[in-house]
Amino acid sequence: MNNIKPLSVVEHMMHQDSFSQWLKIELLEIKEGYSKIKMMVRQEMVNSFQVAHGGIIFSLADSALAFACNNRNNLSLALDCNISFLKQVNVGDELTAEATEVHNGRSTGVYSIAVFNQHNQQVALFKGSCFRTGKSLI
Amino acid sequence: MNNIKPLSVVEHMMHQDSFSQWLKIELLEIKEGYSKIKMMVRQEMVNSFQVAHGGIIFSLADSALAFACNNRNNLSLALDCNISFLKQVNVGDELTAEATEVHNGRSTGVYSIAVFNQHNQQVALFKGSCFRTGKSLI
Amino acid sequence: MNNIKPLSVVEHMMHQDSFSQWLKIELLEIKEGYSKIKMMVRQEMVNSFQVAHGGIIFSLADSALAFACNNRNNLSLALDCNISFLKQVNVGDELTAEATEVHNGRSTGVYSIAVFNQHNQQVALFKGSCFRTGKSLI
Amino acid sequence: MNNIKPLSVVEHMMHQDSFSQWLKIELLEIKEGYSKIKMMVRQEMVNSFQVAHGGIIFSLADSALAFACNNRNNLSLALDCNISFLKQVNVGDELTAEATEVHNGRSTGVYSIAVFNQHNQQVALFKGSCFRTGKSLI
Repeated sequence: MNNIKPLSVVEHMMHQDSFSQWLKIELLEIKEGYSKIKMMVRQEMVNSFQVAHGGIIFSLADSALAFACNNRNNLSLALDCNISFLKQVNVGDELTAEATEVHNGRSTGVYSIAVFNQHNQQVALFKGSCFRTGKSLI
Repeated sequence: MNNIKPLSVVEHMMHQDSFSQWLKIELLEIKEGYSKIKMMVRQEMVNSFQVAHGGIIFSLADSALAFACNNRNNLSLALDCNISFLKQVNVGDELTAEATEVHNGRSTGVYSIAVFNQHNQQVALFKGSCFRTGKSLI
Repeated sequence: MNNIKPLSVVEHMMHQDSFSQWLKIELLEIKEGYSKIKMMVRQEMVNSFQVAHGGIIFSLADSALAFACNNRNNLSLALDCNISFLKQVNVGDELTAEATEVHNGRSTGVYSIAVFNQHNQQVALFKGSCFRTGKSLI
Repeated sequence: MNNIKPLSVVEHMMHQDSFSQWLKIELLEIKEGYSKIKMMVRQEMVNSFQVAHGGIIFSLADSALAFACNNRNNLSLALDCNISFLKQVNVGDELTAEATEVHNGRSTGVYSIAVFNQHNQQVALFKGSCFRTGKSLI
């Protein structure tokens, strides 16, 4: 599965990933088992309270998980994800999600994803596990 | 906070909720502490594996949570949500999310949300807790 | 892995499981992918607030998970577990945990466990996922 | 609620906490919103696979949560906890749990707890949220 750089895998993923494109996710940094990405909250992303829908914040973190857990070119599927919402997110806020690898097992992996706003305040904490299929992405 | 029907509260919410509108969520049934809603997966909702992005499935369940936990007109904010992904979801699939109340406390609430596809196969199980502010929505 | 009855697998497990014995867990019903067990809360199980330590309620649910997800004689290891605490549990309370199978995949499984007290009030909701090793227990 | 030192609050808690005493938990470091504690896994703590029962590892992390989230003398109750099991834990292993505060809200708090063995390998990652009652412990 190797020889292919983590960034190449993620660029390939991003190219196919229509919803991450809709979110206008940008890649900031990609390393083995790690990703840092960002996006801006738009008006069409709010819930009934006019703050970012929980699903938007989750989606950003879930993309960060996918870009971190797949970037060794070992196709991995999210199993369980949980998120704690810490702070309101408003239209215009720029969110950064950073995924770090807590466990890189042969069959499974666990990742912690922190989401911050442009004032460097943490707005969510996400933990996700994945199952490794052993197939290549590229 | 009462006198206002659960369905009226949710219709009011849905009217303001831009992202649930983008998802094209439809209300199927609303009762006190309960909601059942549906949506169809579109091409713009897929991830790099051409299946529904995890964030889309989460978002549907999270809207179901919001419509169930707020519909007594007691403004409630999601605290912690977790989701287990059970089965791939494809473009064209019609997803139904049903939120049932596990606990209706004065300050907090807990809800279980099951997501099914059009073949009545469960594709996700979601559990969410919320904090009750005591404010009215309407 | 078959031919061996679910109850036989769980009786074998219970016989080896020192901590479930310390908890004085009793088996009420065992079926394929399902378990129902009970225990009584003792004085040595309380936390600093003189109610059952969260770890005690989790442990009961976690044993129910193990007895449900392993009883096809396919050795399965818990990956991710989450619990929502709904109601205080006191010394002398009799707790029943019922584990139902949400998903029985080849490599993974997901279970929902409800914990009730002797008044049939739900005190906790637990969701757990496991990885299936493909090895036999017996 | 103040004037009382975090360590004094936790020593008071530990003195009343029968189950943490049974686990033979030792306090290593207590600061505002933070705790670091340890324990050794004994034979009576194993499950049917002769490794530490998941409930034991959870219990240690849950005590670390309680000692971190209560130590400003603001009585706080765990709402939702989730744990990812990363590595087997054996009899004789010495486990250290370190709880750090992710969010200290007026009504709620969120904590991340990492559990390590004596070889400094992470064996579990735990995330817990609590509800603050506003009552004092002492």
